[in-house]
Amino acid sequence: MKIYIAQMEVIPGNPEKNFSAIQKFVEEGIAAGAKLVIFPEMAVPGYLLSDLWEENSFVERCLRINESICELSEKVDILFGSVAKEKENGENGRALLYNAAFYASHGNFKTLIDFGGVKKKFLPKTLLPSYREFEEPRYFSDLRKLAQTMNVPVSEILSPLDLGEFKLGITICEDGWDSLYKIKPFEILQKKMQAGDLLVNISCSPYTQGKDRARDRVFGAHAKNAKIPLLYVNAVGTQNNGKNIYAFEGDSSVYDAKGKSIFSLPIFEEHGSLVNFENGIVSVSETEAPRKTGIAEVHQALVYMIRKNLARFGIRKIVIGASGGIDSAVSAVLYSEAIGHENVFLVNMPTRFNSNTTKNAAKDLAENLGCPYMVAPIETVAKTLCESLAADSFVRNNVKMDVVGIHYENLQARLRSAAFLATIASVVGAGFTCNGNKSEVSVGYCTLYGDTSGVMCALGDLWKTQVYELAREINAEREVIPQASIDIPASAELSDAQNVDEGKGDPIIYPYHDKLFAFWMERWQRNGIADSEELLSKGFEFYCAQLGVDLEFFKTKFRTNEDVMDDMRRWWHRYKGIALAKRIQMPPILSVSRRAFGFDYRESQLG
Amino acid sequence: MKIYIAQMEVIPGNPEKNFSAIQKFVEEGIAAGAKLVIFPEMAVPGYLLSDLWEENSFVERCLRINESICELSEKVDILFGSVAKEKENGENGRALLYNAAFYASHGNFKTLIDFGGVKKKFLPKTLLPSYREFEEPRYFSDLRKLAQTMNVPVSEILSPLDLGEFKLGITICEDGWDSLYKIKPFEILQKKMQAGDLLVNISCSPYTQGKDRARDRVFGAHAKNAKIPLLYVNAVGTQNNGKNIYAFEGDSSVYDAKGKSIFSLPIFEEHGSLVNFENGIVSVSETEAPRKTGIAEVHQALVYMIRKNLARFGIRKIVIGASGGIDSAVSAVLYSEAIGHENVFLVNMPTRFNSNTTKNAAKDLAENLGCPYMVAPIETVAKTLCESLAADSFVRNNVKMDVVGIHYENLQARLRSAAFLATIASVVGAGFTCNGNKSEVSVGYCTLYGDTSGVMCALGDLWKTQVYELAREINAEREVIPQASIDIPASAELSDAQNVDEGKGDPIIYPYHDKLFAFWMERWQRNGIADSEELLSKGFEFYCAQLGVDLEFFKTKFRTNEDVMDDMRRWWHRYKGIALAKRIQMPPILSVSRRAFGFDYRESQLG
Repeated sequence: MKIYIAQMEVIPGNPEKNFSAIQKFVEEGIAAGAKLVIFPEMAVPGYLLSDLWEENSFVERCLRINESICELSEKVDILFGSVAKEKENGENGRALLYNAAFYASHGNFKTLIDFGGVKKKFLPKTLLPSYREFEEPRYFSDLRKLAQTMNVPVSEILSPLDLGEFKLGITICEDGWDSLYKIKPFEILQKKMQAGDLLVNISCSPYTQGKDRARDRVFGAHAKNAKIPLLYVNAVGTQNNGKNIYAFEGDSSVYDAKGKSIFSLPIFEEHGSLVNFENGIVSVSETEAPRKTGIAEVHQALVYMIRKNLARFGIRKIVIGASGGIDSAVSAVLYSEAIGHENVFLVNMPTRFNSNTTKNAAKDLAENLGCPYMVAPIETVAKTLCESLAADSFVRNNVKMDVVGIHYENLQARLRSAAFLATIASVVGAGFTCNGNKSEVSVGYCTLYGDTSGVMCALGDLWKTQVYELAREINAEREVIPQASIDIPASAELSDAQNVDEGKGDPIIYPYHDKLFAFWMERWQRNGIADSEELLSKGFEFYCAQLGVDLEFFKTKFRTNEDVMDDMRRWWHRYKGIALAKRIQMPPILSVSRRAFGFDYRESQLG
Repeated sequence: MKIYIAQMEVIPGNPEKNFSAIQKFVEEGIAAGAKLVIFPEMAVPGYLLSDLWEENSFVERCLRINESICELSEKVDILFGSVAKEKENGENGRALLYNAAFYASHGNFKTLIDFGGVKKKFLPKTLLPSYREFEEPRYFSDLRKLAQTMNVPVSEILSPLDLGEFKLGITICEDGWDSLYKIKPFEILQKKMQAGDLLVNISCSPYTQGKDRARDRVFGAHAKNAKIPLLYVNAVGTQNNGKNIYAFEGDSSVYDAKGKSIFSLPIFEEHGSLVNFENGIVSVSETEAPRKTGIAEVHQALVYMIRKNLARFGIRKIVIGASGGIDSAVSAVLYSEAIGHENVFLVNMPTRFNSNTTKNAAKDLAENLGCPYMVAPIETVAKTLCESLAADSFVRNNVKMDVVGIHYENLQARLRSAAFLATIASVVGAGFTCNGNKSEVSVGYCTLYGDTSGVMCALGDLWKTQVYELAREINAEREVIPQASIDIPASAELSDAQNVDEGKGDPIIYPYHDKLFAFWMERWQRNGIADSEELLSKGFEFYCAQLGVDLEFFKTKFRTNEDVMDDMRRWWHRYKGIALAKRIQMPPILSVSRRAFGFDYRESQLG
C-alpha cells in the first residue's frame, strides 16, 4: 500500500485556501497511486488563531470545508486534522470544539470513537498543551474531558482505526510529547496493535532551533517501543499570535519499527512524499535533501518567516536604518534574501557622534548587497527641534526645555525611527524594521518609538552573541557584512561616551550577560535573581560553569561577589521594569528559541 | 460571633507587602472583637501575575507568607486566599499549584479536604476561568482534577468546614459564577449545610461597568437557594497582564438568607467591616456609603487606575498633548484628578491645520484645570525634516522624497508624540499619555508612533460616544472641559479636509460605528461580518434595532444595503488588518468593559 505524506503550507484563518492546497495534494496522491493521503494537524483552520476560535461563522466555514474534503475521498482515503464541533455548547457558553483528526474514505467519515453507544466521526486530541505560546484549553475540549463525561478511562475509548488490512493508530501532535503527562496515548494504542500495523502523528508544531533532533528522539522512541513504524506529518508555513511569529518547518518523517528515521521531508517547503507500507515495513524511494544545522538553520528559518510574513502583511518593500553596526547589517542581509535586495532600502542617519568607521560600513553593506542606499543626516532636524523647544515654556511651571544628555540621546533614536524612517517608508510605500536583539529586549537597552519601532523584529529572539554567530555564517563564503561591523565594539553611538573608534560601546557584557539573561528567562524551571545569587554563593567557578560563561573572561570583568551582585541587581531591575514597559509596545518578534519574549513569555507590570 | 471582612488592596507580585496589610487587618479584627477575619482570593501573591507563577522562588516566598499568616491566628481565625503547592510536579514538569483557600486557627491550618485518606490543609478552587483575561488552567490545577486523580466525583470531596458552632461553606470567585458549568460548588455545599450555617466566597474579581449588579444577582441567588447567609469578600487595587490594566473595586457584600444584599463595603478603597453572625442571621451596624453608577462609576474606576498605576510605574508627572479635542480634554481631567493638576503638563502643538477654535479650547482647558501649559508649534520642525529629506536621494533607486498628503498627515502625528511630547516628558521627568479611544483603536484610526504612543491609554476601552458621555458627566457641575471641545466635530486636524470650523472631521460615524464595532468585538457570542450582513438582510429597521442604533439617524447616512455593506467591509478590513498591527504596539489599556482590546481579546495577524 502506498501512502502520500502531504507536508502542506497551512494558512492560518483561511480554510478555503487550505482546501485548495488539500485538493492539489489529493490529486498528486491519486496520481502517485496512493491509497491514503495524510495531512497535518489543523490543516483546515490553521493553528495559531487566537480568539478567532470564538467566531462561530469562522468555525462554520471550517466545518463546511471538512465536508468538502470528505467528498474528495471517493478515490483515496484522507486523514487530516481540523476543528470538530459538538451540538451542545461548552462550559463557557461558547461552542464546544475539539482539535481533532478526521479519516475520510469513499465519501464518508469513519467512526473514530465508538464506545458504550457514543460514536464520533472524529478523534479529539488527548493532550492539550497549555504553556509558552500554546493555549489550547482556552478553546478546545479534549479526549480526557470526553472520557470523564463518559465516566471511563481514556484507555477505553482511544483505539486504533481498523482498516481491515491493518490497524492505524492516530495521534495528534502533543499526544506524542507525553513524557510529563500521566496519560500516554501511544502506550494506550500500542497495547491494541501488533506487528503489521502503523502509527501516525499529525502535527502543527512550531520550529525552534534543534527541534528536529528532539522530534527524532521522541517519535523514534514511540515506534521502537511499539515495534511499529510511525509516520510523522507536520505542516510548513508561518503563523503568529500577534506578539510572536513562528515558523513551521515540516520535517515530516518516516520511522521504521526499530525507531530509526528512514526519511525526512525537506524543511520549510511544501512537499509530498510517497511511502511504501507493505507487511508492516515502511520504505521511501526518494532521496533525502541535505539539511542545514545550527545557526545556518536559524538563518533559513528567519528568511522564511520574513518572506512569508511580509507577504501576509502586504508589504513588498522594506526600509532599514543602517547604522554600520552588526544588527542592522544582519537584518539587511536577511530581508534582502527574503524579498530581494532591490526592495530593501538602506538609510544611514548620522549625527556628529557617528564615526567614519560605521558610516563607511553602512555604505559598504549597501554596495555589497546592491541595495538602494541613502544618507540622511538627522542633526539639523534635531537642532531645529531643540531650538524650537527652548523658545517655548510652560505657563504655571517654567521647566527649562534643555534637551541635553540622555534626553538628546533618546531624541536621536526617536527622530531616526519615528520621523525619518517612518516618513521615508511612507513615501517609498514600504514598511520599516526593528533591528533589536534579545539582549537589548531583555533589559530595555533601546529607545521606545526609536529603535524599538518597526513592522517586525527579526533578531528579537537572538542573543547578541548569536547575532555575531549569524554574521560570521553569512560571511562564510564572501564578505557581505563589512568586517568593520563585526570588529568594532557594539555601540549605539548616541554620545561621545559611545565612540567606537575609542573602543567604547554598550554597557552590556554580551558573553556574560547573554547567559545570565538566558538563565533567567529561557529555562523550563524559571529562575529568579535568588537562584543566580545562590549559584554565585558557590564561587565564580561554579557560577560560570552553570551559566556557560568563560571563567577567565569573567574574572577580567568582576573581582568580588558583591561586584557581580551589584551588576546583577541593576539588570534584574531593568529586566522586570522599564524593559517590560518597552516590550509591551514592541513589534512582533520572529521566534526561534525555546522561550521568546512576547506572548510566549507573559508578563505583568508589577512595579 | 463577629466576623471581620478585610477588603484589602492586593499588590500583585508582592507577598511581603500584602502580609503587612494582612497583619494590619488582623489587628483591627482582634481589636473589634472578631473571631474570624476573612481576606480575598489570592490575597498573598496577587492574581494577574502572568508567567511569574513559573518562578519557583516567587512561589516559595508566597508559601512562607502563608505560614506567617498561620502564626497570626493564635487570637483569631483567618480565612484567606493564596497559592498552594503539591510536593510532586504537575504535568508540564513545573510545580503543581492551586488557587486555594486556607483556614488558620490557633496557629494551625485546618484540614479542608479529607476523603479516603487524602487530607489537604487547603481547599483548591473548583472552577478555573479560561476566557478573556483569565487563564488559570495555564498555571493551576483545581478541585475537579484532584477529584479525577482520586477517582471520585467533586461532590464527595467538597464539604463545608465544621467549626463546631456552625459549618462554613467556602468557595473561591469563579466557583460562584457557575451558571454555565456542569459542576456547581454552591449546590454541592448547600446539600451538606443547614440553617445556622454560613457561606463565603473569596474573590479577586476585576471591575467591569455594572458588575456589582451582576454580582448581587449571582451571589444573592446562591444565598437564597441555600437559605443560608453569604459573605462575599473581594479585593481592591489594580492589576494587569501587560496589555490590559484592571481595577478591583471590592464591593464586598453581605447577603442574608433570603439573598438580599444587606450591606456592601465602599468601592475602590481598602476597608474593614464587622459582621455580626448570630443564630444564622447576619447583621451590620455600619451605614453603607452612597454609590456612583453608570459613567460616573467608570469615571471613578479610571481615576483610581491612573493613580494606582502611575505610582506602580514610578511616574509622578504626566505630559498630555492637548489638541483642543474631546479625548485629550477628558484625559487631562482624569489625570489631574488622579495625580493633581500641577503634575499634568498640557502641550498644544499646532500646525496651520489647527483652528483657533481648538487652540483656544486647549488653552481654556489648561486654565480651567490650572495645569502647566505650553504651546509648541511643530511646523518648523516638520518643514526642516521635509526639506532635509528632499535634499537626500537613494542610490540605485531614486524615489522622490516628496512628503505630502497622507505622508505629511502622519508625520505631524509622529512628530507630536515621538519628537515633541517624548522629549518634553523626558526633560520634565514625566511620562506622556495615549489619549486614543476604543473606536479609533478598533479600526486603527490613529498613527503608530504618533497618537498611539504613551505610557498608558486611559480611554482605550471607551467608545467615542462614551467619551462624550464622560465629558458631560465631568461638566455636570461646572464647565471644566471647554464646551467647544464637545461641540466641534471630532477631527484629527491633520489637513484642510479636516477643518472643524467648516464642520469637517473624522470618517467614523460614531453613533453608528461604535455599535457596529461593539457588535463585532464585545459580545460573548462573537460576531463576524457575516453576522452583521445577515442582520442587514432583514432590513434597516431590524438591523438598527439589533445594533441599538437610531433608525432615523442611520437613514440620513445610508440609502441602500449595498452602501452599508461597502462601508462595513472597509471598516472590517481595517479592524482585522492595519488596526491590529497598531494594537500590537499600543500601550496598556485601562479596561472597564466586558471586552477590552489587548490580552483580553487575543488576535493573530492573519493578513
